Amino acid sequence: MRISVNLRMHLPDLVSGVLSGDTRSLSRAITLVESTLPEHREQASSLIEQCIPHSGKSIRVGITGVPGVGKSTFINELGKSLITEQGRKMAVLAIDPSSGRSGGSILGDKTRMGDITALDGCFIRPSPASNSLGGVAAKTRESIILCEAAGYDTILIETVGVGQSETKVHGMVDVFLLLLLPGGGDELQGIKRGIVEMSDILVVNKADQYLERARETAKQYDMALGLMPESKAGWKTKVLMCSALSGEKVNIVWQTILDMEKVLRENGVFDQNRSDQDLSWFREFSTQLFLEKIHQRADIEQRKVELIEAIKNKKMSPTMAARALAALLE
Amino acid sequence: MRISVNLRMHLPDLVSGVLSGDTRSLSRAITLVESTLPEHREQASSLIEQCIPHSGKSIRVGITGVPGVGKSTFINELGKSLITEQGRKMAVLAIDPSSGRSGGSILGDKTRMGDITALDGCFIRPSPASNSLGGVAAKTRESIILCEAAGYDTILIETVGVGQSETKVHGMVDVFLLLLLPGGGDELQGIKRGIVEMSDILVVNKADQYLERARETAKQYDMALGLMPESKAGWKTKVLMCSALSGEKVNIVWQTILDMEKVLRENGVFDQNRSDQDLSWFREFSTQLFLEKIHQRADIEQRKVELIEAIKNKKMSPTMAARALAALLE
Repeated sequence: MRISVNLRMHLPDLVSGVLSGDTRSLSRAITLVESTLPEHREQASSLIEQCIPHSGKSIRVGITGVPGVGKSTFINELGKSLITEQGRKMAVLAIDPSSGRSGGSILGDKTRMGDITALDGCFIRPSPASNSLGGVAAKTRESIILCEAAGYDTILIETVGVGQSETKVHGMVDVFLLLLLPGGGDELQGIKRGIVEMSDILVVNKADQYLERARETAKQYDMALGLMPESKAGWKTKVLMCSALSGEKVNIVWQTILDMEKVLRENGVFDQNRSDQDLSWFREFSTQLFLEKIHQRADIEQRKVELIEAIKNKKMSPTMAARALAALLE
Repeated sequence: MRISVNLRMHLPDLVSGVLSGDTRSLSRAITLVESTLPEHREQASSLIEQCIPHSGKSIRVGITGVPGVGKSTFINELGKSLITEQGRKMAVLAIDPSSGRSGGSILGDKTRMGDITALDGCFIRPSPASNSLGGVAAKTRESIILCEAAGYDTILIETVGVGQSETKVHGMVDVFLLLLLPGGGDELQGIKRGIVEMSDILVVNKADQYLERARETAKQYDMALGLMPESKAGWKTKVLMCSALSGEKVNIVWQTILDMEKVLRENGVFDQNRSDQDLSWFREFSTQLFLEKIHQRADIEQRKVELIEAIKNKKMSPTMAARALAALLE
């Protein structure tokens, strides 16, 4: 599935469309940002530049969990309540570097979000097709800015909790939420080491079908978390239970997200965290781009091949070879 | 303590001194390699170039553990046995990026290695003074080459098991050994996450004083390791007990190191591992040097400051700013 959108739109019209909250303009704007064509890159920069003063006024929530844990169902229930009952505007973005192959695997199956997709005030966008995780992260960050400029006050970033994407998502959200299945340790759940530790709220889903097991799981995580420091200054990770399918207690999860926002805003960590996230992303992404540029240089790549040969043949030590390679950069 | 050695030695003499196994030449050679002066750098390259064909014929063992676990006592006992009974030549190098401050904190206290320091066939060298872990790693790797060229067939790399140095050491040795105290989990022992997992042999020391606790600790680690994959292809991590103070079972630890060497040599992993280590160090160190060069450029550093301002003032997104910075590199 390739999203094909006519990008030959007058840029000022696109900007005013986004700022007025027009969904089609927002879609086109994101497609422009995702485009890798050089002529689009310049337009995208100008677009972002005009949108960024209008961005930032939302809560950004990361949601992760293994396939089958019920993320889409959870988001659907949450969205129904937020949009129809609370009048919020919710955007759902996905990060999944593998989706280039399947064409948006996470959100490809929208049937579980059937209730909200048609709602005004709901915007759902699958992961951009890209092979590089850094590239996906860059585009998702720009998409957040666009959604916020279009008036969305609730941004959900969805990811499958099995890879490296979680660290990237953690670096762009205010609250990081991990959905868990009742029963089974981290290993059984396929959750990568470190993801539990970086989560602000753990939610054991499917508590309606497996209440006892869900309670046991929640208790175990509660105990394990008791040994750990706070997830963000002033916020101690909470463990909750819910049933996304029946909608039970999904509102409590949302209330806990708001509680956390309140705590972090009151102690000043909320803004500090966003500012820190921006600067560390700037450092990380510029480093990535510098290295890409270096390795695009034919002379460096050719010398690298020779030096690897020299290392293998014991003509040079790897340290010497690294110095010789780096010397090519003026 | 600054090691001051006269480096005004004729290079061919230095090379032949090292190759003949002369300890003073070896000391000077390492000092030359550790020197940051540009004129020494060139000499050091030439020195390494001439030594590297004579390197590689040793077993390289990493030894780590928290302060007080008995590393120096263990190395002393092991050294006595290897040098006087088995006729091996043993070199001990230390990695400790903090030692720049204390002047070789790990090996500063040589009293616990008093028995071996005076032995022929024993060479002990404290950590080079350097603030960068990458820098220390680079120098230690070159020192290994020099020690091997000087005929040392057993290289021990010692590190305090509390920091990031362990990953660096793990990347330059054939066998990685972790000393543990009887009783207490990883947290109590101050061992960083991941170090147990990367170890090939765990040794519970001080088993003479605390036999029951040592047995219990060994059993616990044995069970925990049962759940994990092999540490290196074909080698399943072993858990042993010993008493470095009385010398009891230190020989069994050594025998296990040799067993592992045999297994890895027979299935071809030994050489493959060294080759992989060389290439990944080459990639890692050249990346580090490239980034150092980039950040030494005044135009880039100045633009970086401006771009950080623009990010903070919401004039630019971090992604745009990163692209703008990277564009400065031709």
